[in-house]
Amino acid sequence: MAEQRFRGVIPPVITPLTAAREFDEKSFENNVKRMLEAGVHGLFFLGSTGEVAFATAQRRREVLEAAVRVVDGRVPVLAGIVDIQTDRMVENAREAQAIGVDAIVATAPFYALSSEKEDEANFRAIHDAVDLPLFAYDLPVCVHKKLGIDLVMRLAKDGVLAGVKDSSGDDVNFRYLCAANQEAGSPLSVMTGHEVVVDGAYMAGADGSVPGLANVIPRPYVEQWEAFQAGNWEKVREIQDYLARVMRVALVAKATRGFGVGVGGFKTALMLMGVIESNQMPRPVEALEGEDMEAVRHILTAEGLL
Amino acid sequence: MAEQRFRGVIPPVITPLTAAREFDEKSFENNVKRMLEAGVHGLFFLGSTGEVAFATAQRRREVLEAAVRVVDGRVPVLAGIVDIQTDRMVENAREAQAIGVDAIVATAPFYALSSEKEDEANFRAIHDAVDLPLFAYDLPVCVHKKLGIDLVMRLAKDGVLAGVKDSSGDDVNFRYLCAANQEAGSPLSVMTGHEVVVDGAYMAGADGSVPGLANVIPRPYVEQWEAFQAGNWEKVREIQDYLARVMRVALVAKATRGFGVGVGGFKTALMLMGVIESNQMPRPVEALEGEDMEAVRHILTAEGLL
Amino acid sequence: MAEQRFRGVIPPVITPLTAAREFDEKSFENNVKRMLEAGVHGLFFLGSTGEVAFATAQRRREVLEAAVRVVDGRVPVLAGIVDIQTDRMVENAREAQAIGVDAIVATAPFYALSSEKEDEANFRAIHDAVDLPLFAYDLPVCVHKKLGIDLVMRLAKDGVLAGVKDSSGDDVNFRYLCAANQEAGSPLSVMTGHEVVVDGAYMAGADGSVPGLANVIPRPYVEQWEAFQAGNWEKVREIQDYLARVMRVALVAKATRGFGVGVGGFKTALMLMGVIESNQMPRPVEALEGEDMEAVRHILTAEGLL
Amino acid sequence: MAEQRFRGVIPPVITPLTAAREFDEKSFENNVKRMLEAGVHGLFFLGSTGEVAFATAQRRREVLEAAVRVVDGRVPVLAGIVDIQTDRMVENAREAQAIGVDAIVATAPFYALSSEKEDEANFRAIHDAVDLPLFAYDLPVCVHKKLGIDLVMRLAKDGVLAGVKDSSGDDVNFRYLCAANQEAGSPLSVMTGHEVVVDGAYMAGADGSVPGLANVIPRPYVEQWEAFQAGNWEKVREIQDYLARVMRVALVAKATRGFGVGVGGFKTALMLMGVIESNQMPRPVEALEGEDMEAVRHILTAEGLL
Repeated sequence: MAEQRFRGVIPPVITPLTAAREFDEKSFENNVKRMLEAGVHGLFFLGSTGEVAFATAQRRREVLEAAVRVVDGRVPVLAGIVDIQTDRMVENAREAQAIGVDAIVATAPFYALSSEKEDEANFRAIHDAVDLPLFAYDLPVCVHKKLGIDLVMRLAKDGVLAGVKDSSGDDVNFRYLCAANQEAGSPLSVMTGHEVVVDGAYMAGADGSVPGLANVIPRPYVEQWEAFQAGNWEKVREIQDYLARVMRVALVAKATRGFGVGVGGFKTALMLMGVIESNQMPRPVEALEGEDMEAVRHILTAEGLL
Repeated sequence: MAEQRFRGVIPPVITPLTAAREFDEKSFENNVKRMLEAGVHGLFFLGSTGEVAFATAQRRREVLEAAVRVVDGRVPVLAGIVDIQTDRMVENAREAQAIGVDAIVATAPFYALSSEKEDEANFRAIHDAVDLPLFAYDLPVCVHKKLGIDLVMRLAKDGVLAGVKDSSGDDVNFRYLCAANQEAGSPLSVMTGHEVVVDGAYMAGADGSVPGLANVIPRPYVEQWEAFQAGNWEKVREIQDYLARVMRVALVAKATRGFGVGVGGFKTALMLMGVIESNQMPRPVEALEGEDMEAVRHILTAEGLL
Repeated sequence: MAEQRFRGVIPPVITPLTAAREFDEKSFENNVKRMLEAGVHGLFFLGSTGEVAFATAQRRREVLEAAVRVVDGRVPVLAGIVDIQTDRMVENAREAQAIGVDAIVATAPFYALSSEKEDEANFRAIHDAVDLPLFAYDLPVCVHKKLGIDLVMRLAKDGVLAGVKDSSGDDVNFRYLCAANQEAGSPLSVMTGHEVVVDGAYMAGADGSVPGLANVIPRPYVEQWEAFQAGNWEKVREIQDYLARVMRVALVAKATRGFGVGVGGFKTALMLMGVIESNQMPRPVEALEGEDMEAVRHILTAEGLL
Repeated sequence: MAEQRFRGVIPPVITPLTAAREFDEKSFENNVKRMLEAGVHGLFFLGSTGEVAFATAQRRREVLEAAVRVVDGRVPVLAGIVDIQTDRMVENAREAQAIGVDAIVATAPFYALSSEKEDEANFRAIHDAVDLPLFAYDLPVCVHKKLGIDLVMRLAKDGVLAGVKDSSGDDVNFRYLCAANQEAGSPLSVMTGHEVVVDGAYMAGADGSVPGLANVIPRPYVEQWEAFQAGNWEKVREIQDYLARVMRVALVAKATRGFGVGVGGFKTALMLMGVIESNQMPRPVEALEGEDMEAVRHILTAEGLL
């Protein structure tokens, strides 16, 4: 079964840059190996956290080639192929397949408005173009619409979708999606992208998590998954409280909003912890500095991570 | 401590109407007594579920007077004083105090736009006007803004707010609110209003729940609370899955959207179960009928409730 | 024809308050008489500008009784009956009719979500309850939905609606509404509520305007209407440029957002110009002061209004 | 002065496709020549109407190379370089410059959230990368934020922006933008993208229009511009009423929403009028057919265009 390959903790991997905004492959390798050693069950490259929205065609290739080389088959490699519309995503999907990834992750189209009919055609066209499991990325904060359960399940039953990464922030819908999936014989891997409520997602029946924070602290997410598998809910909860405290590294910056605060916080934490060289961000975003960097440092220190 | 009075399951009570859209006090009494017998820990009248938005001044009085009479001190009576702006809410608060309720529940102002400064002044003015614990009702789907954690905690530390009813659908924020509250010595009762993810809210540290569905099935929510208090998470989860299935009575209707589907579904279920006389709705909403009623009946039958 | 009574400039009248937040009837009378002398064609009381959202039942009565007394039949008196839901608006409508107004203005319900079917039932219920022309108030910034042209025209053809006050900010829709109205034989008075683009609205076929700024400078709006009636578009445009400059009194304050800036700016201008006593605002809004007041004064001085 | 080159009617050109979804260069040439003969003052390729969101790198090149070849210097060629983030837009801008366009048009970044600081850095980075006049494309329906007047004027005064194409639907803001531009000595060409309210935009001080409908009926837009230049407002208005009627070809389809209805309507009209071969749309959008095509035909017939 397709979904059995995609269970557990599958972090969306950050894309380290040099000060000159080139791809920093050495830092990338450090970070990926650290997560593999922590026991993650898969890795998702070129997600929003992996700067897919900022990546030129060349950057996409660099990252995916490095990913396949470093992971070397130890866990599944998922590749984001996010782009504005279908034909571009099809191009990205073919490129990713040629590089050798194990699965692809796509959003609905997100510039010109479209109806659900067109969202459905989009996923079907991508599925038809390559021979790889396809995940739907449900991310209304960037894509500006929510994927409905009926659409997702119809695509799952037809073998178009192998999974969903849910970053919609809609926990009510998430529980009903998990229930609909189980009722249909679990054709989907249903993964949550919300770092601080993974416990609730596991209670709801999630097949795993895709936490950006696992770049910073991969091991606790793995331990939380293991506690969940063992039915040790008190430990699931206790770890979650810790994760929520550390997650503040991605919420604390004041100089900007959104992506720069979140991914900027992860990169800054990883730099302070010595995992990556620089906390540089892609244009037009600036790296955290000054008080924002100190705020991240303060959280890491308080949690014993420095 | 104020918050100790407001813990556990505190359902928002529906307001039964006769076919002629008068207040049906007998059905109201049946429904309230059934919940009291199930062991609920408080009752919240004139919430959104209780049709506060539709209620004239006279209807408000009828409901609160009946509430105080029927509950008769067995559990705390919370009264919604929701209105467009501050002066109206102050009037409603004074009226509710005169009738003898134990706490009041207010939103931010919601017609003319306002800033957080004005939301804060609103809650302070209401608190100053009466001598009752005040809950903030966080309901962006109706009020069109989210109450920030900093604002809520500032008001809690100043003794203005005794609690929050969170119906914001933002589980990430909810966990951080629970954490901030605990850090401050738990001045607030933090309650979730989302029927199908109460398990996640308890994991996050909620002090209780305000589930509209508890009108229909009060006992399982009480049992879930007791399981939570006993640390029996597997039972919390198992009950939650059942609750989510029954909650579809409030999601299944096709003839309208929003309030008419949700509260209309609760009322229709209660009528079919013989608890209330009619599933009538306030103008301009129509009661569920035909296929929509049959869909509710089908869910109740499948879950053994008819 | 009903619509012939409602043409031209019909300002939404502000509600002056004393420092103690009581209704300042003397300032109210000054302001109303000044607008009547300027030649306005109607007056709209208890609009958003008239603080309908903040008004208790008593304040509504005070304002409408003073309005009917001061206007004394010289122009039509329109009364806002805006409230959360239908039954409350019906109560307000009956009260307004008893006081003797000439027309009423209602929004769609705006707290619990509703469908267009319910919006339609809302307007029909209000129309059935009183014997007064009914205007629909299209104000998505407060009501959080847009009234569709099909709905509005269906209600117009059935004699339910006599007019629309459009404050939706959607000039494309406005032109199509004007066209649909003309095609149907002009059952509606279509009025724009946007002070700075009245020229475009007249080009699109509007029957008049409802400019809050006309409290401050009523005469230019009347002159603009007369230029429009005379086909003198160059003058319409020239006056519009002046109006846009003065309108900055309602945009310039920094201490708050929304209503407090706009109506607060009008009141501050009127106080500085000696028309009303105080720029006091209803709770929880604060009156403009300090730099914000100076900014308003600066604009008035630059335009020769002080 | 830069802005003097960009005045008048500058239609956003559709991108005709064959049934197999290849670029149909012959139809493209027909359509462009027809607009040139009608006297348009510039042409904007790869706008939203030109399917920029759907275009792969190859499609972008095909369209711009054909554009430069067919226009052959008769009017300025503007090229959309819209993409998700800065680095991609910089790549597109360089490619467009190499092909020989006269100006470029960019949006703010639109996937990962960003602050105004980042929007500003985005436009500055693009401006620095090429030696071409840069237009900002203000299109909240796709980009999900509005460009503020202060930002736009700051970039104009620094020579970063040469113009704005406003498709924001905010006519109040548009008037203030025109006023701010004139106050600053008119560094910007301020163009409206709203086909049916061009008259109001001209009243507000627009330097021209970018109407998608001008693919279908280019000559009336040119005549409207000339009437505006001559101060013949009655004719401006009369033409506008005609344009609004024909614009319904882009509003009438029922089978989908948004882009497919609008651009689908333009393409269907052009096919029915014999200007292009097929009304094919890019994946995942389907061409209008059946009742939707008949509805377009009916409008064209009623207006004497068939």
